[in-house]
Amino acid sequence: MARAKRARWNDLTLRAASVTAAAATLLATAASAQVPLSAAPADAHAPASLTASLNLAWVLVGGFLVMFMQVGFAMLETGFTRSKNAVNTMAMNMVIYPICIIGFWLTGYALMMGGVAQWPSLGTTGITSHELTLNLGGHAFGLIGTRKFGLLSVSHDPASLAMFLFAVVFMDTAATIPTGAMAERWKFSAFFLYGLFMSMFLYPLYGNWVWGGGWLAQMGVNFALGHGHVDFAGSSVVHMTGGVTALAGAMVLGPRIGKFRRDGAIGALPGHNLPMAMIGTLILAFGWFGFNAGSTLAASDPRIGLIAANTMLASAAGALAALLYLWHRYGKPDGAMACNGLLGGLVAITAPCAFVTPQAAVVIGTTAGLLVVGAVLKLERRFRIDDPVGAIAVHGVCGAWGALALGLFADGSYGEGWNGVSGPVRGLLFGDASQFVAQLIGVAVNLIVVFGLALTFFVIVERTIGNRVPAEVEWTGLDALEMGSDAYPNV
Amino acid sequence: MARAKRARWNDLTLRAASVTAAAATLLATAASAQVPLSAAPADAHAPASLTASLNLAWVLVGGFLVMFMQVGFAMLETGFTRSKNAVNTMAMNMVIYPICIIGFWLTGYALMMGGVAQWPSLGTTGITSHELTLNLGGHAFGLIGTRKFGLLSVSHDPASLAMFLFAVVFMDTAATIPTGAMAERWKFSAFFLYGLFMSMFLYPLYGNWVWGGGWLAQMGVNFALGHGHVDFAGSSVVHMTGGVTALAGAMVLGPRIGKFRRDGAIGALPGHNLPMAMIGTLILAFGWFGFNAGSTLAASDPRIGLIAANTMLASAAGALAALLYLWHRYGKPDGAMACNGLLGGLVAITAPCAFVTPQAAVVIGTTAGLLVVGAVLKLERRFRIDDPVGAIAVHGVCGAWGALALGLFADGSYGEGWNGVSGPVRGLLFGDASQFVAQLIGVAVNLIVVFGLALTFFVIVERTIGNRVPAEVEWTGLDALEMGSDAYPNV
Amino acid sequence: MARAKRARWNDLTLRAASVTAAAATLLATAASAQVPLSAAPADAHAPASLTASLNLAWVLVGGFLVMFMQVGFAMLETGFTRSKNAVNTMAMNMVIYPICIIGFWLTGYALMMGGVAQWPSLGTTGITSHELTLNLGGHAFGLIGTRKFGLLSVSHDPASLAMFLFAVVFMDTAATIPTGAMAERWKFSAFFLYGLFMSMFLYPLYGNWVWGGGWLAQMGVNFALGHGHVDFAGSSVVHMTGGVTALAGAMVLGPRIGKFRRDGAIGALPGHNLPMAMIGTLILAFGWFGFNAGSTLAASDPRIGLIAANTMLASAAGALAALLYLWHRYGKPDGAMACNGLLGGLVAITAPCAFVTPQAAVVIGTTAGLLVVGAVLKLERRFRIDDPVGAIAVHGVCGAWGALALGLFADGSYGEGWNGVSGPVRGLLFGDASQFVAQLIGVAVNLIVVFGLALTFFVIVERTIGNRVPAEVEWTGLDALEMGSDAYPNV
Repeated sequence: MARAKRARWNDLTLRAASVTAAAATLLATAASAQVPLSAAPADAHAPASLTASLNLAWVLVGGFLVMFMQVGFAMLETGFTRSKNAVNTMAMNMVIYPICIIGFWLTGYALMMGGVAQWPSLGTTGITSHELTLNLGGHAFGLIGTRKFGLLSVSHDPASLAMFLFAVVFMDTAATIPTGAMAERWKFSAFFLYGLFMSMFLYPLYGNWVWGGGWLAQMGVNFALGHGHVDFAGSSVVHMTGGVTALAGAMVLGPRIGKFRRDGAIGALPGHNLPMAMIGTLILAFGWFGFNAGSTLAASDPRIGLIAANTMLASAAGALAALLYLWHRYGKPDGAMACNGLLGGLVAITAPCAFVTPQAAVVIGTTAGLLVVGAVLKLERRFRIDDPVGAIAVHGVCGAWGALALGLFADGSYGEGWNGVSGPVRGLLFGDASQFVAQLIGVAVNLIVVFGLALTFFVIVERTIGNRVPAEVEWTGLDALEMGSDAYPNV
Repeated sequence: MARAKRARWNDLTLRAASVTAAAATLLATAASAQVPLSAAPADAHAPASLTASLNLAWVLVGGFLVMFMQVGFAMLETGFTRSKNAVNTMAMNMVIYPICIIGFWLTGYALMMGGVAQWPSLGTTGITSHELTLNLGGHAFGLIGTRKFGLLSVSHDPASLAMFLFAVVFMDTAATIPTGAMAERWKFSAFFLYGLFMSMFLYPLYGNWVWGGGWLAQMGVNFALGHGHVDFAGSSVVHMTGGVTALAGAMVLGPRIGKFRRDGAIGALPGHNLPMAMIGTLILAFGWFGFNAGSTLAASDPRIGLIAANTMLASAAGALAALLYLWHRYGKPDGAMACNGLLGGLVAITAPCAFVTPQAAVVIGTTAGLLVVGAVLKLERRFRIDDPVGAIAVHGVCGAWGALALGLFADGSYGEGWNGVSGPVRGLLFGDASQFVAQLIGVAVNLIVVFGLALTFFVIVERTIGNRVPAEVEWTGLDALEMGSDAYPNV
Repeated sequence: MARAKRARWNDLTLRAASVTAAAATLLATAASAQVPLSAAPADAHAPASLTASLNLAWVLVGGFLVMFMQVGFAMLETGFTRSKNAVNTMAMNMVIYPICIIGFWLTGYALMMGGVAQWPSLGTTGITSHELTLNLGGHAFGLIGTRKFGLLSVSHDPASLAMFLFAVVFMDTAATIPTGAMAERWKFSAFFLYGLFMSMFLYPLYGNWVWGGGWLAQMGVNFALGHGHVDFAGSSVVHMTGGVTALAGAMVLGPRIGKFRRDGAIGALPGHNLPMAMIGTLILAFGWFGFNAGSTLAASDPRIGLIAANTMLASAAGALAALLYLWHRYGKPDGAMACNGLLGGLVAITAPCAFVTPQAAVVIGTTAGLLVVGAVLKLERRFRIDDPVGAIAVHGVCGAWGALALGLFADGSYGEGWNGVSGPVRGLLFGDASQFVAQLIGVAVNLIVVFGLALTFFVIVERTIGNRVPAEVEWTGLDALEMGSDAYPNV
């Protein structure tokens, strides 16, 4: 994902005649890798450059791994909910995947990536693209893509199709996050509508602004704010978007019956299968390597070694921080919170993974692990928001932290030419305070726009078909009355 | 798999002095990539061309992903059966894998692929091969391979060994399908015999005819029926073979006690762990990317981008079609049927995935999703065949549909020189009705020959050691009496 | 991993001016692939050679697959233990992963790999390295690495960071093995300390001796014992180390309450979820392809085809040998033992996988399958050691067998220049008895040193904080009293 805007902006810089050496290399690669699908026999070996082939395989394998994260989310969320709602929780995780694919195919990919002309690392060039752009005070503000609906204009371009797959699984990750926070009380028809809203419009919108060449990416060129909002693999674009939407949804839905009692006590409502949730966590950690290392869109970029190691280190630091803090505080090692700490570390390292040292990755992960614990407790006790799996804390809070962490720890060893701005990406601690401002703006915009639009959507649904199942369905369980099948009929 | 016959036929066309430009490229690659294992130091870096190395890695990673589908099948089938038979169902899925490996190693690989001399994309050439061929009226009809038993003649050729692994996991997929349809009543010894029969003989036979250079692949050259029977990744070779064998087995075994009652009522006999089955489905969708995209046998073929995207789109369309149809008809979203719809879409796109547009993939998947629902209901209500997991509908019916769909929707953008026939592969809707006929013949031959041989096998077993456990074993559960261990002893 | 010492020793042989042709090729590759990270723009495409990029991707994907084995271990061990200890068993598997990452980051990687200067296949050169070496009688004995603590000196080298990740997951495999043998009675704090000891010191020590350029690898150069101790992917380094440590731990801990009764009877104490254990086994078989084929550290080495096929064949032979033997002996097919047989085959082929024919792989796997059955029964009945999951038999016994099997069956077709000794690796049956002696010494050293150090560690813990939970905790279950949360609260 991360190179999307770079691709676009190299294109722009070309036109602006300010080509950097790096960009020249990129374009040269792209030119020699052109794949004239209609002219040459389509299945001849090695029509593209071998570099493009290696990178295409890398993007696909990365995409497969991210798709597999859906299994992790399904197990995590189902394990953390009650057995009477297990089919419902699992089914939301199973069904969100096809909804996202079809919704993203119809409009999402076009809105998000319709303004990106080429994927240089994948050997594609010459795709027709267009971005709806607002020109204001001499600056161009990309708002939304307008080409590639239904993949019609790119239906034989391997790179665009691979990128479609890669983009789908990232959006699927964002879209599945609210199914955790809103579990055990969400009407399936309302959930289905939400899936279409998220995949066809909400995610693509913010995604376009950061990865599709939109205005948040352009803040560097337009206003000298670092390289604009930079998010390597999705702390803000994917996780914060999911977490913030989950927050809006959980607020509109309200807490589960029995969660917050009249006397002020908080019900535990423990999930029915903690081992399942822990397996889900490990599966997520596995798939995350595709998430982060795949986001170079190029195995020919040796940075993949650093990215994968950073991803691993931050996850470990997050898990140990959460585990040791709670162990110290309450006297028992809390396995479930270690899971959330590990995931928090992963979410936080997602934006900065390519830009920071392994040592910084440990710091970022440790902070995320502690943040998760604090946020889970605060959301429940202070704000009385009921999030059965901790999705808002893990994805929303740590997503924001990850985007900001890039603005602090990026060490200037990577990101030459990113978003059309020359020089590498540097954070506040390495001399570029404006990059931190760009990160802060991206986070604030996510919180305002994504939250606002999500809230609007949920309120409209509330006033029409309703978001929540009736109380008797919730009491009996959504499996029996909403889905019509039990999870464990004859154990 | 898909390139097997292409490899062979490029070889033949060479001898026939009708080399196409594409074939020349292939052979040139192969020649420069020759690996003289005995002469040069075996572990020097880059003895093969880098393209061959990339492709070898691609085939292996694809094979690993397909192997992982065994986990998906195991969870799907075990989740859909009762807890008293959970160890038995799981053990069949666990044990079929080693049986298939050893059976295929002994004879299966030789019978199926013993006539294939080279794997051009993998840099192998000069392997001694032989196919038993019937010459009739001036035409050659390949019947079965006769070399490479026990891998003896290729025990140091990396490409042949990688292809062995890749072929094993495909055959394992076919072999595991009947364990679902025949679950909860199959004697373990009879199952074991079946595993040997399937891996050593039945699967390799039809596999040879389509992928090993046999007569179904030769129908294009011999009778101008398109490019002969074309099956990119196994709708007919793998899935229909498995589904048709499952049909024969389920018919011989008969329904489970309590399924079809004297008064005509149909017992539900629900599985014991629906979340497990749904996780299994998602795992299958993950592994399927290896199944389809891996079947190029070449990451240097950029078509992998289109294949992977088509695979994803068809699965989504199948899932949503099944879900929405049943939701509309019965008022509840049926998670289990959404799983079967998703799998039906995957099965159906498997043959045509490389030859059709993303838009056609959605049509193929949607049709498959509706077909699955219809076939499940029809098989149970009309034909009174008891298939606990819906394997016959998913793999048999959608497998046939997939093979035919290629004959309809192949758009002429891929497949130059396939099976030795010049020009790309085109379906009925793109001007080549003869391709549809070739697809129809392949499907009919599968239905007749595979069903006939499987039925014969099951009847012979029935009259000797018997296929079915005694009624008291079925009542008590196969775990306690057939396997000697409970699935959940002390929950 | 396997090339680590080769890298080092090619370096040494260079200095000794005895460069073989193979080594020259390796070094030439390395030179042309130099990545001057500080000078050139860090994210330009293709700064390294494409071969190095392909290999880097191969190592990472292999590492991801091995990391995923943690899910397999978690499910296997948790399934084989009782539900009252499910959270504890699962949590040990979940938490050992972050402990290992942080421990290995702090000191482990430095001690094990701090003496390795380069990764030629990954395009790295010029890393500062140092090994603490004892010079005795004109021979150099490498003892332990002394550079790269906290990854500080390699924090921007992609190859070193990828190798860190790859090394972490191998050590994690070793470290997780004792959590199975010591399950259901181990205090969590003692387990935590063990995790640090294993990742920071014990595993790296033996690992350095075999893979880091240490004295066991040098036995070929120093004493003409074949190529020194050779272990391609870790039968001795990973599995035997884990199994031997598990043995020491299980001995110090003692058996679970109820295992060995006063009257001499042996309690079965069956696990609570056999299907979960069987799924875990299949997941391990999946991840193992990364373990073995990834250990070339190079997709450009076509041997990966043979390695993957051998891995598959040995696993199948092990599973069928164990299954058929017990089926024949006790009249029932034992699914759990088939799992252990499959794993035993995998453990045994891990050292020799690159050096033997597919036919030999079947022999090695078959032997391992029978060995596992014998060892499980012997350990329990004769030595009265309580190992809930059979980890000592699977990893310890078959690990030793695998290392020895290399010394028997290596056929001289691979391993030119391994550990600085010219000529390929040959076992006893192919003319080099001294290689078998080197294997025997490596196994003996593992048994003596690893067992001795592990025992010392466990005894010290025993005398300070104690290893074992109080009897009432064991009776009630570790989940309720040690972890503070139930696995299945409201099923």
